[in-house]
Amino acid sequence: MNQYSDNSLALHTDKYQLNMVEVYWRQGLHHRRAVFEIFFRKMPFGNGYAVFAGLERVVEYLQNFRFTEEDIEYLRQEGYAGDYLEFLSQLRFTGTVRSMREGELCFANEAIMQIDAPLAEAQLIETAILNIVNFQTLVATKASRMMQAIGEGSALEFGSRRAQEIDAAVWGTRAAYIAGFDGTSNVLAGKKFGIPIVGTHAHAMVQAFRDEYEAFKSYATHHRDCVFVVDTYDTLRSGVPNAIRVAKEFGDRINFRGIRLDSGDLAYLSKEARRMLDEAGFPDAKITASNDLDEYTIINLKAEGARIDSWGIGTKLITAFDQPALGAVYKLVAIEDENGEMQDTIKISSNPEKITTPGIKKVYRIINKGNGKAEGDYITLQDENPQQETRLKMFHPVYTHIAKFVTNFEARELHTTIFEKGTLVYDLPDIHTIREFVKQNLELLWDEYKRPMNPVEYPVDLSQACWDNKMNLIHREQEKVRQLIYAQEHEVE
Amino acid sequence: MNQYSDNSLALHTDKYQLNMVEVYWRQGLHHRRAVFEIFFRKMPFGNGYAVFAGLERVVEYLQNFRFTEEDIEYLRQEGYAGDYLEFLSQLRFTGTVRSMREGELCFANEAIMQIDAPLAEAQLIETAILNIVNFQTLVATKASRMMQAIGEGSALEFGSRRAQEIDAAVWGTRAAYIAGFDGTSNVLAGKKFGIPIVGTHAHAMVQAFRDEYEAFKSYATHHRDCVFVVDTYDTLRSGVPNAIRVAKEFGDRINFRGIRLDSGDLAYLSKEARRMLDEAGFPDAKITASNDLDEYTIINLKAEGARIDSWGIGTKLITAFDQPALGAVYKLVAIEDENGEMQDTIKISSNPEKITTPGIKKVYRIINKGNGKAEGDYITLQDENPQQETRLKMFHPVYTHIAKFVTNFEARELHTTIFEKGTLVYDLPDIHTIREFVKQNLELLWDEYKRPMNPVEYPVDLSQACWDNKMNLIHREQEKVRQLIYAQEHEVE
Repeated sequence: MNQYSDNSLALHTDKYQLNMVEVYWRQGLHHRRAVFEIFFRKMPFGNGYAVFAGLERVVEYLQNFRFTEEDIEYLRQEGYAGDYLEFLSQLRFTGTVRSMREGELCFANEAIMQIDAPLAEAQLIETAILNIVNFQTLVATKASRMMQAIGEGSALEFGSRRAQEIDAAVWGTRAAYIAGFDGTSNVLAGKKFGIPIVGTHAHAMVQAFRDEYEAFKSYATHHRDCVFVVDTYDTLRSGVPNAIRVAKEFGDRINFRGIRLDSGDLAYLSKEARRMLDEAGFPDAKITASNDLDEYTIINLKAEGARIDSWGIGTKLITAFDQPALGAVYKLVAIEDENGEMQDTIKISSNPEKITTPGIKKVYRIINKGNGKAEGDYITLQDENPQQETRLKMFHPVYTHIAKFVTNFEARELHTTIFEKGTLVYDLPDIHTIREFVKQNLELLWDEYKRPMNPVEYPVDLSQACWDNKMNLIHREQEKVRQLIYAQEHEVE
Repeated sequence: MNQYSDNSLALHTDKYQLNMVEVYWRQGLHHRRAVFEIFFRKMPFGNGYAVFAGLERVVEYLQNFRFTEEDIEYLRQEGYAGDYLEFLSQLRFTGTVRSMREGELCFANEAIMQIDAPLAEAQLIETAILNIVNFQTLVATKASRMMQAIGEGSALEFGSRRAQEIDAAVWGTRAAYIAGFDGTSNVLAGKKFGIPIVGTHAHAMVQAFRDEYEAFKSYATHHRDCVFVVDTYDTLRSGVPNAIRVAKEFGDRINFRGIRLDSGDLAYLSKEARRMLDEAGFPDAKITASNDLDEYTIINLKAEGARIDSWGIGTKLITAFDQPALGAVYKLVAIEDENGEMQDTIKISSNPEKITTPGIKKVYRIINKGNGKAEGDYITLQDENPQQETRLKMFHPVYTHIAKFVTNFEARELHTTIFEKGTLVYDLPDIHTIREFVKQNLELLWDEYKRPMNPVEYPVDLSQACWDNKMNLIHREQEKVRQLIYAQEHEVE
């Protein structure tokens, strides 16, 4: 199919990165220390919070980051010069990564991750990291949003066949599990991550036997745990009665866990099925429902009194259907100058929301010690320590008159060092620990931030010093642009 | 991170497949010949046609289909019995696959692929095949739709950072290229598939130099082909003039290919930039535009007279943003009975659109020899040959009074045998051949089917025999369900 066959991901980058790095390298700028921050500007789905996911795969990617012989050979054919390729072939990731932990709640306009590395490295890894973090954070957030709608019920990930290729199916499932889903139908995700796998049979089995009762009986003969799919012919007149019949006939020889509804009016059918199961003496048999569910249909079904214990969710979760991309970006906030001094950088834009916040920063979650709830997040320059304040002023970064003072608080730093000068210094937690961490984090938020529809906006504020620094740089940069344009127009004349 | 490390995809399936197959195996049904067809029910994006993609990866998947020792070990831990695992460990794909070729145009309710294999194998591979075909066909279709909007211009794929994980970025790029895109920024896709890669520099380089003119000059010093990104500070007052200045200074030492606009009013800016470039003596310098483009913004920009030569498209393409999932399904159409006879099967549903068309079928494209255009697709039972008809009746499969007679036609069969009893018998074409094939296929369609908005519905009709067979099976099945329910109610009493 093609002449290259290794699994190197170093070339999973945009070509312009390779070209820019060549310029840096030839000009001797490639080793300058550069700090990039990853953040998104808008809450996905209009949700009140997002759930950070993707760190584990980013770590794996950075640890293995190297251009293979095949990569170099390909680039040579693409016309890159030998001396530059020699430089690339020696390149490893030697930077420092500070990041939120997977499962941390994150919000718009705060750094999820910070890459602090020689300019060349930092630039080359941008594309892959964004690709990974954007998707996994998006699906974890979508899943968490669905869990808010589900409440006490359980949720199962069924989306593999509709996912956007294999990685999305497998890593998306992991993101869903982190965010509170209870299991998945995807066996590879079970093997790879230790996620509980679920599933019994499909309509196809009933069709293959050409008799629903025979199909259920055969399944029960060979499997102890039984959930019967009851809508192949007629849910209430054939499916549920056949499930009950087989459950009675097999008695203790099987674990009759319940039934699955996959079509029709799920509200009506679940209520009727519940009644039938209860009357037949199976009050513990659970009802699983599936069929293009999302948080909106779940809320509606629950409002109608549907008796659904477990929600099988596919397409709408695994593709984040109503917003299939998270727009996280990777922006330079500081760079070493020719004298070895770090200089804060800002990207200005005619769109005020796209102006970056300059400088190497820290992000704190301010937790009220009185009630244990978060008052908001607080972004500082790196040498500030909000814990030293007794009375913290938190003000809106745009509408600065909106302000509050917080006392008796804990300022919990949200970034952990993952790589220190290229060495992994962080123990990746297992997936169950991450899932538990999400639950704990959600405890910190008032319900008003967590409801799927019209949540209250969670404060993400800048410290006074951070805000002042940003304003100073905006003014300095505007002045510079005015001078540039003046010089340019002068030149053109 | 986890105890398993191989790259086996055999477990990339839904758990219920493994459970159903165990039942089949224990009942001795696993080797029965089963024929499944893959099709979708609704045209994605309301487009007039879809472009089939995904076959190459499906072939790779089927060739490598086997449960590894790690897979078996994992399943053992999950409680599957040793004798069944022994069966699985021996399993290889031994079936026959008939499929459209990649790049074939396809339509709702006709088989894209046909899997004709022992029941156990056919069932286990469903999930992965749908996962691959659904995504790649979706993106190829989205890309082709964008190419219809673009017309004579060129299109570049820039979506890696917003794709749904790595496979989607890489295979999505391939799908876009097949469908007519001219290049990609993704270097790995270039290496893996031989797609032309494009890109020069980002805003970050201008920021790193802290001077736009210096940045462009440095780039030009080290790269022959130059496209300058001109919107870091002020497109018309700084960016374009600096690009022109550097182009003039470097003269023949560089290939000044043009500029890229990535923000602002692309219609106005492109017209002004075109004028400036022309006046400066660079009429051949091209203007590339990017910034959240899709077919709708492209059509609007062109209607406004934007002077854009090349369209850089990211998020909206690679995630198929307005419909991020194609709902292709995998349905049993025939199965061997206990006497070794093939029996057609149908899945009935209270939703008429979800009723399948039973039987092993062939799909023909009926081409009018007079004008070289397609009259529609024609689905027959496997033993029919429409080419033998002199006057072919094509009628709508639902509104059967809508009918036409076609004479002087070629009936071109759309399925090719890919695997014959497990052996690959098809030479996979290279990606450039597939891309050419798409172009040829589009020539067969009238423009009315190809416009992105409100296209005319392309006919996909059943032969009389195929339609009669479907109606017979619907009636038979309805009768069977009635009897089942009667028996069931009788039983319950």
